[in-house]
Amino acid sequence: MGSQEDSSLQSIRYHRGSLHLLDQRKLPLDTIYLEIRDAVEGWEAIREMVVRGAPAIAIAAALSLAVEVSKLDGFSGTPKDAASFLEKKLEYLVSSRPTAVNLSDAATKLTELVTNHAATATDANQVFQAYIDAAEIMLKDDVADNKAIGSYGSSVIQTQKKDCKKISVLTHCNTGRLVISGYGTALGVIRALHADGVLERAYCTETRPFNQGSRLTAYELVHEKIPATLIADSAAAALMKTGRVHAVIVGADRVAANGDTANKIGTYSLALSAKHHGVLFYVAAPLTSVDLSLSSGDEIVIEERSAKELLNTRGGLGEQIAASGISVWNPAFDVTPANLISGIITEKGVITKTGNEEFDIKGFVHKTMSNN
Amino acid sequence: MGSQEDSSLQSIRYHRGSLHLLDQRKLPLDTIYLEIRDAVEGWEAIREMVVRGAPAIAIAAALSLAVEVSKLDGFSGTPKDAASFLEKKLEYLVSSRPTAVNLSDAATKLTELVTNHAATATDANQVFQAYIDAAEIMLKDDVADNKAIGSYGSSVIQTQKKDCKKISVLTHCNTGRLVISGYGTALGVIRALHADGVLERAYCTETRPFNQGSRLTAYELVHEKIPATLIADSAAAALMKTGRVHAVIVGADRVAANGDTANKIGTYSLALSAKHHGVLFYVAAPLTSVDLSLSSGDEIVIEERSAKELLNTRGGLGEQIAASGISVWNPAFDVTPANLISGIITEKGVITKTGNEEFDIKGFVHKTMSNN
Repeated sequence: MGSQEDSSLQSIRYHRGSLHLLDQRKLPLDTIYLEIRDAVEGWEAIREMVVRGAPAIAIAAALSLAVEVSKLDGFSGTPKDAASFLEKKLEYLVSSRPTAVNLSDAATKLTELVTNHAATATDANQVFQAYIDAAEIMLKDDVADNKAIGSYGSSVIQTQKKDCKKISVLTHCNTGRLVISGYGTALGVIRALHADGVLERAYCTETRPFNQGSRLTAYELVHEKIPATLIADSAAAALMKTGRVHAVIVGADRVAANGDTANKIGTYSLALSAKHHGVLFYVAAPLTSVDLSLSSGDEIVIEERSAKELLNTRGGLGEQIAASGISVWNPAFDVTPANLISGIITEKGVITKTGNEEFDIKGFVHKTMSNN
Repeated sequence: MGSQEDSSLQSIRYHRGSLHLLDQRKLPLDTIYLEIRDAVEGWEAIREMVVRGAPAIAIAAALSLAVEVSKLDGFSGTPKDAASFLEKKLEYLVSSRPTAVNLSDAATKLTELVTNHAATATDANQVFQAYIDAAEIMLKDDVADNKAIGSYGSSVIQTQKKDCKKISVLTHCNTGRLVISGYGTALGVIRALHADGVLERAYCTETRPFNQGSRLTAYELVHEKIPATLIADSAAAALMKTGRVHAVIVGADRVAANGDTANKIGTYSLALSAKHHGVLFYVAAPLTSVDLSLSSGDEIVIEERSAKELLNTRGGLGEQIAASGISVWNPAFDVTPANLISGIITEKGVITKTGNEEFDIKGFVHKTMSNN
């Protein structure tokens, strides 16, 4: 266990004692893996944006420590010393990206786990072993959850479009193997449709201003030989008007209790166009994205990002192209109201609307949790 | 006559015997005017994209020849020789951009005019003088038409939004002084709202993939100290949802007889968002953009442009950013159906909908022509 079965494209290449991360700063022009040998190198890789995307960051951090621990030679301490050693390393790893909720959540869970093990373990190695197992399970679960999302998503779209021989879909931003350790959320659905032999074509938007679509999604689609076409974000409505798109599938940063969904800026515009043209609009996201404490999307605070992303090329990293002195409004996300969403594809199944045209997300979460 | 009254920002600076063109290749980082002394230099400036935009190209070409002619010393020929000389020069100028309809239309009209003058003139200088006058009138009329569009547009929006103290508008692409010799169409309306003291803020989109918004519109707005904010194309729907935009104003490449309008890719998406949010959506265009031979937008052929515009920075001129091997769909324009358009602002007034919610453009054109 602990190694990923599918070797086609991975942001995280891991087997026990060995971790390599795909250097996303070099994409799409170069495909380079960096070896990560310990928590310090894991911290640096996260800090320097070698790896990005909330789930991938959390897993990369946990695995960097697992690799370090697997090579520990002659740790002379009690089980409690081992737990304390791991706790400090995890705290340190969290400091690489303090705002990443998945990362701090993962660190909290892993700290709890090793503290519990330390209480009953007879030597330090048992605690380290428990840590390594838990970090590897995080990776395995993430891949399994992604594959479940892909499978549920492919099924629901095929059912909805059963009169179509082949199905074409449009996606936004990057929700593939590069942000998730495994298979992708929205892009996982596209992979599953392709694997099922029903995908005609995947369209991906550039996703301004940071170009995650043209850089990363396009890269993944080309890499896996999925028939794919890149469009400007602003061309999506014109494309839908031609009838060439059957479904839009996007990821989610946050899903509120009523189904309102925060996702990369531009998602809302795609949802309006989809509604107007009678195109299906699905959100694909793990249940960890659902925040039942938010009654609606109105409660989601939208981060505003640097003006430089629009003023300069390469999302702010390149040369200036825009006029000097212009003000910029650059929200990172927008909120798509539930009434524009056909369904929410999760690793436990697809949340569809009830008789009154509303999502019962709380009910779905409670039902699937009680089934576990 | 012959010089423009407003010196704030002009793509064409002209007075008799002197023509300077703003080098648009250097914008927005440098503001450099090139002197054009004759038709050869005019031809090169058009060919090399120093000047762009259909009306500006036609006028720059005509004026380059006017400058050459104003300096002719000792032309030894008949009035017919003068007409023939001008005709050949105009033919040559048309070859700088053979697909520019405004340019070839202008050349045809000017050739007719000098041929007619040659029939009655007593010496060659009279023909040259008639040519210079006609070229200068083209510039003057263009400025006057633009100002009329600005004035009609400002009025109609103020009337529609009479309950608002201040008005904020969103525009797309560049429709300002840089494509028109004078004052701008959609941007002319924004200028007029600002001059009338009712403009709260102008929002301009980047306008992917060639960034006319972030490069040119933003440049003009900053230059004239109009309060302005740049957004990603895909952020427009989210912006409208905040209620901060009262009207969208765009230009037009072509308006069909039913009011369907072809304009820069992304316009259709803005129109859908405007409709959804109850935001006014106006097209501002001179009547020369109306093509009564097209019964609807379905008859407008959409040019597809180079994939490089999406694959590389700076609209294809810069470094590669997108993944190698990805297919691209890059339509230059899209068609916004008349039912999404609040009105069409022309130099003769605003075309609004009749009782049956349709535009009577043919009727408007015939009425305004018969008033001339």
